[in-house]
Amino acid sequence: MENVQAPTAALLTSEALLKHWQGHRGLTRRTIEAFPEKDLFEFSIGGMRTFAVLAMEIVDLTGPGIKGLATGEWSENPMAHISGEGMPKTKEELLTIWDETTNRLETYWPQISTEKFDDAVKAFGMYDGTILSTILYFMDNEVHHRGQGYVYLRALGIEPPFFWERA
Amino acid sequence: MENVQAPTAALLTSEALLKHWQGHRGLTRRTIEAFPEKDLFEFSIGGMRTFAVLAMEIVDLTGPGIKGLATGEWSENPMAHISGEGMPKTKEELLTIWDETTNRLETYWPQISTEKFDDAVKAFGMYDGTILSTILYFMDNEVHHRGQGYVYLRALGIEPPFFWERA
Repeated sequence: MENVQAPTAALLTSEALLKHWQGHRGLTRRTIEAFPEKDLFEFSIGGMRTFAVLAMEIVDLTGPGIKGLATGEWSENPMAHISGEGMPKTKEELLTIWDETTNRLETYWPQISTEKFDDAVKAFGMYDGTILSTILYFMDNEVHHRGQGYVYLRALGIEPPFFWERA
Repeated sequence: MENVQAPTAALLTSEALLKHWQGHRGLTRRTIEAFPEKDLFEFSIGGMRTFAVLAMEIVDLTGPGIKGLATGEWSENPMAHISGEGMPKTKEELLTIWDETTNRLETYWPQISTEKFDDAVKAFGMYDGTILSTILYFMDNEVHHRGQGYVYLRALGIEPPFFWERA
């Protein structure tokens, strides 16, 4: 008798993962809002980047990233957080860009069918992974940098938003 | 003709999620190792907790947490990161506790069958969620606090481990 293993069941749906991500994005948006205008663009610790640049890294990965994962087209525009070109100059501009990215995520996400999440992909023409591993990387990178923003806020004497509130 | 929707397929297996978590845990372990002994227990920014205490929060959630999720038994021991009781005194002690937690995760994880991930749970007798949402919370909390440890390291003039290396 053959030893046939049952296929391993899976536990997270595409819709649930998007909701989880958007919950994180809501919290990151509130973290941006918590910064005084000047400190958002000027304050940092230990030679690190400002929170505006860290937030734009999240934007640069998420927006062109979800389009690339959904369509196979990877933007060749220089990334604002690296080139400086297209960097917002005010908190309001940054929040507007943030919200455009949130909408873009809603638009492209349903174009990735669940069967494709295991597909191999070279993100931004450079990073080998699967669609799922790339998405998890983007999310983890957001949580990582937002946590750094919390330290900046604490160093500025400002209470960060509650970590457990997501919306 | 009835409009019957296909059930939404799921995209992440229990095994893949555990591997993702353990990858993060490997990186957090290297972050602990990167701290000078004294700074691990004394350095902080903006009135925050030391990285030793943040690491013990991760231990206190992960170890008793995975046992609770797998067995329904929630430890009533006071948590070291809150009470101070059982706090390690050296980096080596902290790493030993860290590794015990890693092993505990391997032991209890397979006891949670995939069908149970959607089950309602009151984590630590207090926090309402599902088994999956609780696990994601523990993981996100680890990435969040580790990112804060990176700022401490940068402020100390120490290069943190590469974020993209997981093992």
